[in-house]
Amino acid sequence: MQKWVYGFGAGRNDGKAEMRNLLGGKGANLAEMASIGLPVPPGFTITTEVCTYYYANGKQYPAELKAQVAENLARIEQAVGLKFGDEQKPLLVSVRSGARVSMPGMMDTVLNLGLNDRTVEGLAAASGDERFAWDSYRRFIQMYGSVVLSVDHHRFEEIIEDAKLDKGVSEDTELTATDWKKVVGGYKAMVEEVLGSPFPQEPEAQLWGAIGAVFGSWMNQRANTYRRLHDIPADWGTAVNVQAMVFGNMGDDCATGVCFTRDPSTGENIFYGEYLINAQGEDVVAGIRTPQPMSEARAKPGERSMEKAMPAAYQELVRVRETLEKHYTDMQDIEFTVQQNKLYMLQTRNGKRTAAASLKIAVDMAREGLIDEAEAVKRVAPGSLDQLLHPTLDPKAPRTVLSKGLPASPGAACGTVVFSADEAEARAAKGESVILVRIETSPEDIHGMHAAKGILTTRGGMTSHAAVVARGMGRPCVAGAGGVVVDYASQQLMAGGKTIQAGETITLDGATGEIFLGAVAMVEPKLSGDFATLMGWADKFRRMKVRANAETPLDADTARKFGAEGIGLCRTEHMFFDPERIGAVRQMIMSDSEGGRRDALAKLLPFQRKDFTELFRIMAGLPVTIRLLDPPLHEFLPHREEELAEVAESLGADLAAMKRRALDLSEANPMLGHRGCRLGVTYPEIYEMQARAIFEAAVATARETGKAPVPEIMIPLVGARKELEITRAQIDKVAKEVFAEAGTTIEYLVGTMIELPRACLTADSIAGVADFFSFGTNDLTQTTFGLSRDDAGKFLPYYVEKGILPKDPFVSIDPDGVGALVEIAKDKGRGVKPDIKLGICGEHGGDPASITFCEGVGLDYVSCSPYRVPVARLAAAQAALSAAGGDRTA
Amino acid sequence: MQKWVYGFGAGRNDGKAEMRNLLGGKGANLAEMASIGLPVPPGFTITTEVCTYYYANGKQYPAELKAQVAENLARIEQAVGLKFGDEQKPLLVSVRSGARVSMPGMMDTVLNLGLNDRTVEGLAAASGDERFAWDSYRRFIQMYGSVVLSVDHHRFEEIIEDAKLDKGVSEDTELTATDWKKVVGGYKAMVEEVLGSPFPQEPEAQLWGAIGAVFGSWMNQRANTYRRLHDIPADWGTAVNVQAMVFGNMGDDCATGVCFTRDPSTGENIFYGEYLINAQGEDVVAGIRTPQPMSEARAKPGERSMEKAMPAAYQELVRVRETLEKHYTDMQDIEFTVQQNKLYMLQTRNGKRTAAASLKIAVDMAREGLIDEAEAVKRVAPGSLDQLLHPTLDPKAPRTVLSKGLPASPGAACGTVVFSADEAEARAAKGESVILVRIETSPEDIHGMHAAKGILTTRGGMTSHAAVVARGMGRPCVAGAGGVVVDYASQQLMAGGKTIQAGETITLDGATGEIFLGAVAMVEPKLSGDFATLMGWADKFRRMKVRANAETPLDADTARKFGAEGIGLCRTEHMFFDPERIGAVRQMIMSDSEGGRRDALAKLLPFQRKDFTELFRIMAGLPVTIRLLDPPLHEFLPHREEELAEVAESLGADLAAMKRRALDLSEANPMLGHRGCRLGVTYPEIYEMQARAIFEAAVATARETGKAPVPEIMIPLVGARKELEITRAQIDKVAKEVFAEAGTTIEYLVGTMIELPRACLTADSIAGVADFFSFGTNDLTQTTFGLSRDDAGKFLPYYVEKGILPKDPFVSIDPDGVGALVEIAKDKGRGVKPDIKLGICGEHGGDPASITFCEGVGLDYVSCSPYRVPVARLAAAQAALSAAGGDRTA
Repeated sequence: MQKWVYGFGAGRNDGKAEMRNLLGGKGANLAEMASIGLPVPPGFTITTEVCTYYYANGKQYPAELKAQVAENLARIEQAVGLKFGDEQKPLLVSVRSGARVSMPGMMDTVLNLGLNDRTVEGLAAASGDERFAWDSYRRFIQMYGSVVLSVDHHRFEEIIEDAKLDKGVSEDTELTATDWKKVVGGYKAMVEEVLGSPFPQEPEAQLWGAIGAVFGSWMNQRANTYRRLHDIPADWGTAVNVQAMVFGNMGDDCATGVCFTRDPSTGENIFYGEYLINAQGEDVVAGIRTPQPMSEARAKPGERSMEKAMPAAYQELVRVRETLEKHYTDMQDIEFTVQQNKLYMLQTRNGKRTAAASLKIAVDMAREGLIDEAEAVKRVAPGSLDQLLHPTLDPKAPRTVLSKGLPASPGAACGTVVFSADEAEARAAKGESVILVRIETSPEDIHGMHAAKGILTTRGGMTSHAAVVARGMGRPCVAGAGGVVVDYASQQLMAGGKTIQAGETITLDGATGEIFLGAVAMVEPKLSGDFATLMGWADKFRRMKVRANAETPLDADTARKFGAEGIGLCRTEHMFFDPERIGAVRQMIMSDSEGGRRDALAKLLPFQRKDFTELFRIMAGLPVTIRLLDPPLHEFLPHREEELAEVAESLGADLAAMKRRALDLSEANPMLGHRGCRLGVTYPEIYEMQARAIFEAAVATARETGKAPVPEIMIPLVGARKELEITRAQIDKVAKEVFAEAGTTIEYLVGTMIELPRACLTADSIAGVADFFSFGTNDLTQTTFGLSRDDAGKFLPYYVEKGILPKDPFVSIDPDGVGALVEIAKDKGRGVKPDIKLGICGEHGGDPASITFCEGVGLDYVSCSPYRVPVARLAAAQAALSAAGGDRTA
Repeated sequence: MQKWVYGFGAGRNDGKAEMRNLLGGKGANLAEMASIGLPVPPGFTITTEVCTYYYANGKQYPAELKAQVAENLARIEQAVGLKFGDEQKPLLVSVRSGARVSMPGMMDTVLNLGLNDRTVEGLAAASGDERFAWDSYRRFIQMYGSVVLSVDHHRFEEIIEDAKLDKGVSEDTELTATDWKKVVGGYKAMVEEVLGSPFPQEPEAQLWGAIGAVFGSWMNQRANTYRRLHDIPADWGTAVNVQAMVFGNMGDDCATGVCFTRDPSTGENIFYGEYLINAQGEDVVAGIRTPQPMSEARAKPGERSMEKAMPAAYQELVRVRETLEKHYTDMQDIEFTVQQNKLYMLQTRNGKRTAAASLKIAVDMAREGLIDEAEAVKRVAPGSLDQLLHPTLDPKAPRTVLSKGLPASPGAACGTVVFSADEAEARAAKGESVILVRIETSPEDIHGMHAAKGILTTRGGMTSHAAVVARGMGRPCVAGAGGVVVDYASQQLMAGGKTIQAGETITLDGATGEIFLGAVAMVEPKLSGDFATLMGWADKFRRMKVRANAETPLDADTARKFGAEGIGLCRTEHMFFDPERIGAVRQMIMSDSEGGRRDALAKLLPFQRKDFTELFRIMAGLPVTIRLLDPPLHEFLPHREEELAEVAESLGADLAAMKRRALDLSEANPMLGHRGCRLGVTYPEIYEMQARAIFEAAVATARETGKAPVPEIMIPLVGARKELEITRAQIDKVAKEVFAEAGTTIEYLVGTMIELPRACLTADSIAGVADFFSFGTNDLTQTTFGLSRDDAGKFLPYYVEKGILPKDPFVSIDPDGVGALVEIAKDKGRGVKPDIKLGICGEHGGDPASITFCEGVGLDYVSCSPYRVPVARLAAAQAALSAAGGDRTA
C-alpha cells in the first residue's frame, strides 16, 4: 500500500529534510525539526504525490488516503490528549500548503480548524478563557471563509469594523468575548447569505474542505502565473500539512513570532525578528499591532524585547536557534509560538538575505566552523556581488517612477539630463553629474558615456552598444526603455506622462531598469574584508582563469584591482575614436589607394603603440589578447551631412567625394558586412600597422620592465581557414621585421574569435592555424539566432516574457543552439590540437549561468567587463566545485 | 626498377586511356589508339611522376630515366628504320607536353626535333625534297628557339619577312630550298647573338633540352595562374610525349588536319573540321593559309574538301572516326597527318561542344546505341541548358563592351536605359524594350523589373534582390556591376569611359555579366524535340522531386511548362506590393492597435484568397508550399519623405506620426530583425488572415475542380520550437473555423523554413511540431557565414578570386558550413520523425552542385525558379545516377 501521509512530532517522524520533493519544504522541515528534538506540535503531511494523483484522476483522492489521514489524526489526538470535534476537549488543527519551493499565490494557511458552535464552548471551558475561544472561532471562520470558501475578505472586515463602531472602540483588543460572539454570529449569517448554505460545522468536513482547497489552489491563476514565471513544473504538486494547533493568543504568557537566526540585511550574527504577545501568526504580519524586537540589544526605547518579556521562552529559542544553525548550517527563517510559556516551532527554512548579509554569513559560518570554505563559496550568489560593487538606491528613499527599461548595467546614478555626448563631456568638465540620454549610442559617444554618471537609451538590448560599453566602464545603464520618447530637436524626453527638459534631474537604477523623476537618495558601496576573504577562497577552488575586457589604462587598472588575470579582449577600434586620432582614421578611410591608407596609418602607429605599451605595463607579464580592427569602416564616419562637411574640410577632401565614399561604404546589414578579418584581408595595411604597434610595444615593455608580455593577437570574424592563414602570415611577417629591427624576439600567439557558426563547424580546419580560440558569443548568438541585438528590442522582451525563449540569449548563453556550436568547435578544435587555448570573451563571460556552461565545456578562461570580474571569479569557483562535486559522488 | 617511360605504337603499348593521371591525356590516348589498331606513329611517354620527382628533387631526373628513354628511342628507330642523329636517314621526333587535363599556358609542341646542319642534308636526300628538308629545319629552329630557348618569336618572323622582301614575294610557299637555307643561316646567327652560344646541334642535347622545357613550363607563371583559376593541384605534374615525326609538308600527297567527329556547334552527325595540304600542324591554326573543309557536304564553292582531294586517306579517316566513336562512345576532337597518302593519328580527346550540340549528341548517340539513356543524361551539363532556354547574343555579332558585372540571370537583352521602375513600366506599356538600371532593386521595383527586358544593378551579389527576382521571372540580369556609376539625378550612367543617357540603348549578357554599348544581335532559343526526350529520360532516373519558386500565375504556368512538380516556395509578400494592395498593407503597418490592423487585413483577404485560388488551379492537385509573411514591415513603406507624405495623405494619416512609425520600424540589421515568424508571433492577425485566405481558396478550388489541393503552409525564420507551436496553433484554429464555415475539410501540412543555424541545431525539437522542413539556404548561408548578401559585393568576389572561398556560397551550397548544418538538421529531424518531408527552396535549389549535395543528404525535393526547373531536373537525375553508380561499384 502506497504511503500517502507522513506523520511528524510526538516521537514519530516519517519524514526528513531531504524529502522536500515529496513532503514540500514546510512538511519536510517540520519532520526534521521534530526528529532533532525540537518542540514541534504533532501533525502529518499529505504528500505532493496526492496532489499529482488528484489532478491525474479527475480530482479524486487515492482510495487509501482517507484511512491514512484518520490514522494520523488519531495519533495527534493521542499525543495531545484531545479529540477532533470533541465538545469538551476539542483538538484544533492548522492546515497549510507546502510546495517544494515557497510559492506565493497558493493557499497559505487555515488556523483553528475544528471549531464550531459546540467545540468553541469546549475550548472556552478547557482554556478557561472565553474571549480567547470566541476570538479563535471568529478567526477560523474568517480564514476558512476567505481562503477555502472564497468569500471576499472585506465582508469579514466590515463586520468587525461595525462591531468596533457599535462599541465605540478602535482596537480589536478592546473587544470582549461577547463582542466576538456577536461577530461570529454576523460572520455566519454573512457566509450563509453569500454561499446559500451555512458555514460548515462538521470538523471532518472542514478538514477535507481545507485539504481540497490547498490542492485546488495549486492550479489557480496566480499559482499558474507564478510557476510560469519561475519555471516550476506543474507536476511537482503541493503537499498539505495538518498540525495540532498551539495558541499564542491564550493570554500574556503566550506569543507568536517570526525571526531570522542572523540579521538578513547585514548578516550580523544576532537574533533578528519580531514577536507579539497574545497573538496568532497573522497578527504579526497584519500590521494592526506593532511587533516587538526579539533581542534586548535591538530594542529601541519604548519597545519590549522578548528577551526581557519572556526570558525563559527566549532562552529556549536561543538554544533552538543554535541547534538549527548547527543542524542546517545556514541562517534560518523560523516561525514559532509560545503557549503558556512553552515554545513550539512551526516552521524553519533557509532565510532570504541581502547580498551583503549573504557574504558576511558565509564567511562568518566558515570561520565558526559551521561550514567549510568551499561551502561558503557556494553560498553567495555571484550575481548578487553587483550590489556590493555599485552604489544602490536607498531602499527607504521615496521615489517617482517615470518608466522602465532593461537593467543593462548595475548601480544607481543621478544627474541632469543631457542629450549629446559633447554636452555630457562639457557639463561633466564643470563638475556637473549628468545622465546621458540617447535613442541609442555609437562608438562616437564613448567620451560622453565616460563623462556621464549614467546612461539611458530608448533602443537596444542587454548587449547593445550602450549596455556593453557601460558595463565595461562600470557606469549604470538603463537600455531599451521603449516607454521613453526622446526628442533631440526640442531637447526633451517624454516618459510616464511627464516631460523632462535637458538640465532637469533624473535617477537611474541600472539593477532594475527603473527611471525615476528627480534625485533619489543613494547608498554607496562598502567593500568589507569579508569580500576579499571570500574571493580568496573562491580563487582556490577555481579552475578557469578570469580575464577582463579592457582597452583603456583605467579599465585595465580596475580589472587588476578586481583580480583579473589578464586581458581577454582589447577592442582596438575603441582606441580609434579619440579626437586626436579620428582624423587620421578618417583620412585612411577616405583614401582610395593603398599608399594613401598607409600614410594615414603611419600617423596612427605611435598612438596604438602607446596604447599597447600602457596595457602591457599594467598587465605586467599577464596575457593580453588584442583583437585587431573589427567594425566596418563606416562606423568611423559621421552620420550627418554637416559633420561630414566638417570632416571633409579638416581633411582637405572634397565633400562630394566624401559623400560618395560614405555612401559606398554604407551597408544594409553592417553586422554581416565588410568587417572583421574581411577588412584585414582586403586592406592588409591596417592589420600590419596594428601588428607593428603591438610588437614594438611588446619589445619596448620587455626592455623597460625586463618582463616580456605575451601578446595574443586575435583575428575577428574568421569563417574560413584561409582568412586566418592570410592574416596570420601578415602578422608573422611584421613580427619578423620588428624583431629584426629590435634585435630581439618576443613570444606571441595568433588566434581567432570564434563568432560565426561556420567557424564552429570548421573549427578543426581553423585550429590548424590558430594558437587559441576565443568564443565571441555576442556575435555568435546574433548569427545563430539570426537576431540583431540592436533590433531585437522590438520582440525579444516579449519572447522572454512569454517563455518562447527561456532567457535573453544575449544575457545567458543559449545552451541548445549557441552552446551546441561552442561544443562542436571545442570538440573539433581539440580534436586536431588537444592543447589549443580556449576562452570566451562575449558578454556571457560575466554571466554566472554561462560561466557554469563554460566550465562544463572545459574552457581555459572567461573574460568579462572589469566590474564583472569578481562575479566571474566566484561563479567560476562555484562551477568548478559543482563539477568536482559531481565527481565526488560518482 | 620503377617504370618512368611508357612506349606506344609499333606493336607495343604500355599504356591505355585509363592511365591519364600517369601519362597525361595525350599520351594515354595515343597508347589507346595504337592498341585498338589505329595508325599511330611510334613513340613514348615520360610519366607525370617524373615531373613530380623532378620538382621534389631539385630539378634532377630519376637515375633510371636516361636508360629508359634510350631504350624506347631505340625501339622507335627500329620500328621506323631510321636513326636519331643519323646523317643519312635521320629519325625526327616531336616533343609534346601532356597533363591530366588540357592546360593552355604550358609548353605545347616542338616538331622536327633531331635536325641539324648535317641531318638536314640526310633528310633532303632521303625524302628527295630539299625544300621540304630546309623548311622543316627552319621550322624546328623557330619552334625550339622560341619554346625551349625563349627567344622572342618576333625575331624569327622578322628574318622570314626580310627573306620575302629580298625576294619580292609575299607568301612562304614562294620561298625555295635556297631561300630556306638562307633563313636557317639567319636564324642560327640571330639565336647565337641572343643566347651567346650556338643553336644546339646535338640531337640528344636537343631532346633533353625539349624534355626539360616541358617540365619547366609546368611551373611557369601562366601555368600557375591557370592551375589556380581551375583548381588544379601542382603535384599532378605533366607528362612528355616523344613521337616519331610524320610529315604533312612533304608534298601534295601530304596533309595535316584537326577535326571533330560531329559538329561541335550543332551536334549534327557530320564529319567536321579543317585540313591543309602540304603543311605541318601549326599552319592550320596560324591563319597564313586558309584551311579547307573535311567533307564535301560542307564545302563551299571554291573550297576543296579532303573527301575530294585525298579520297583514300579521307575514307580511312572516316573509318577511324567510326572506330573512335564506338571505342570512346563520345564525340572526339582529333589531330591527324597524312604523309604520302598514309594517315597517321596524332591525338584524340573528347571534343568540347555547345550546349545544343551536347544535347543533340547525347540523344543521338543513345538512339544509335552507342550509349544508354542513363549515360546520355549524364553527358549534358545541367547548367548549359540555360543557353537553350534564353536568347543569347549572336556569337558573330560585333560588340563594344562597356563594363562587366555578375552573371546574375542568364539570357541576353537589349533595350533603352531607364532608371526607375515606373519609367520602365510606362515605356514598356508603349511597346518599348527597356533595360531597368538601378543601384539596387527592392520589392517596390518588381513591376518595373517585370516590364523590363533586362535588369542591371551596380550593387548586390548573385542572390541580391535583383538577381533572385530576375531569375524567377526569367529576365536576364547583370548584378553588382561595380564599374558602372549610376546618377539618378542626371539620369545617366557612366561605364567604360562612356556616358549613357536615359533612352540610349544597351545590351546585357546575363550569362557572362557583360554590358554592351548599343544593340548587339541576338539568337532566339529553339527548343528541339531532343530537349524533351532528354528531360524525359532524366525524369526516369530522378529520385528527388523538382518544384518551383513561384508567386504569380505566369510564374506558375512557366514552372509547369518546364515540368515543375509543385510549388516549393510561394513568397506571399510579393503579392503585397501590387498597387491595388499596398495601400491596405501600409494602413495595416501604420495602425497601432490590433483592431486597426485587422480592419486593414480584412481588405487584403479577398486579394490573397484570389492569389491562392489561381495558384491552386494551375497546380491542380500538386503540392503548393506557401510561406507566410517574411520581410520586416518597413520594407513596405516608401523610403523618401515625399513618398511618405503621399502615402500619409492617401491613408488620411498624420505625416509626423507616419514618420515616427517609419523611424520606429527602421532597423540596423533588417536581415536579423523583426521579420519571419517573429511578425507572426507578435502580430498574430497577419498570419491568421493569410491562413484564412489559404484555406478559403483551397475549399473553393476543391469545390470548383473536385481536386483538393494540399496546401503546405510554411512558417519562416523559426529558431525555437515554441515559435512554430504558437504560429501553428493559430493556423490550426483558423483551419477549424474555415472548415466549420464551409462544412468540409481539406488536408494541409504546416512546416517551417530551416534557415537559421539554431533551427538546424534544435531540429529534433522543432520536428516534433513540423510536418516538413524546407531548407532556406539563402538566409542559412547569410547567418552561417555572417555574410549579408546585400553587402558581400565589397569583398566576396575578391574572396572567390583569391580562393579564400572556393565558390560564391550564395551560388553553390557551402558543404563544410551550411551543408554541415543541413546534415545536422536532417539527422536530428529524421531522428524524431523518420518520414518528415525535407526540401530546399533557397537559390541553391537550381544549382547543379548543390542539387548533388541535396541528393547526398537525401532530401525529398528541390525547389528553384521556374527557368531553372529543367536544369534541376537534369541535375537531380545525374545526382541520382551518380549515387546509384556509387552503389553499383560497391
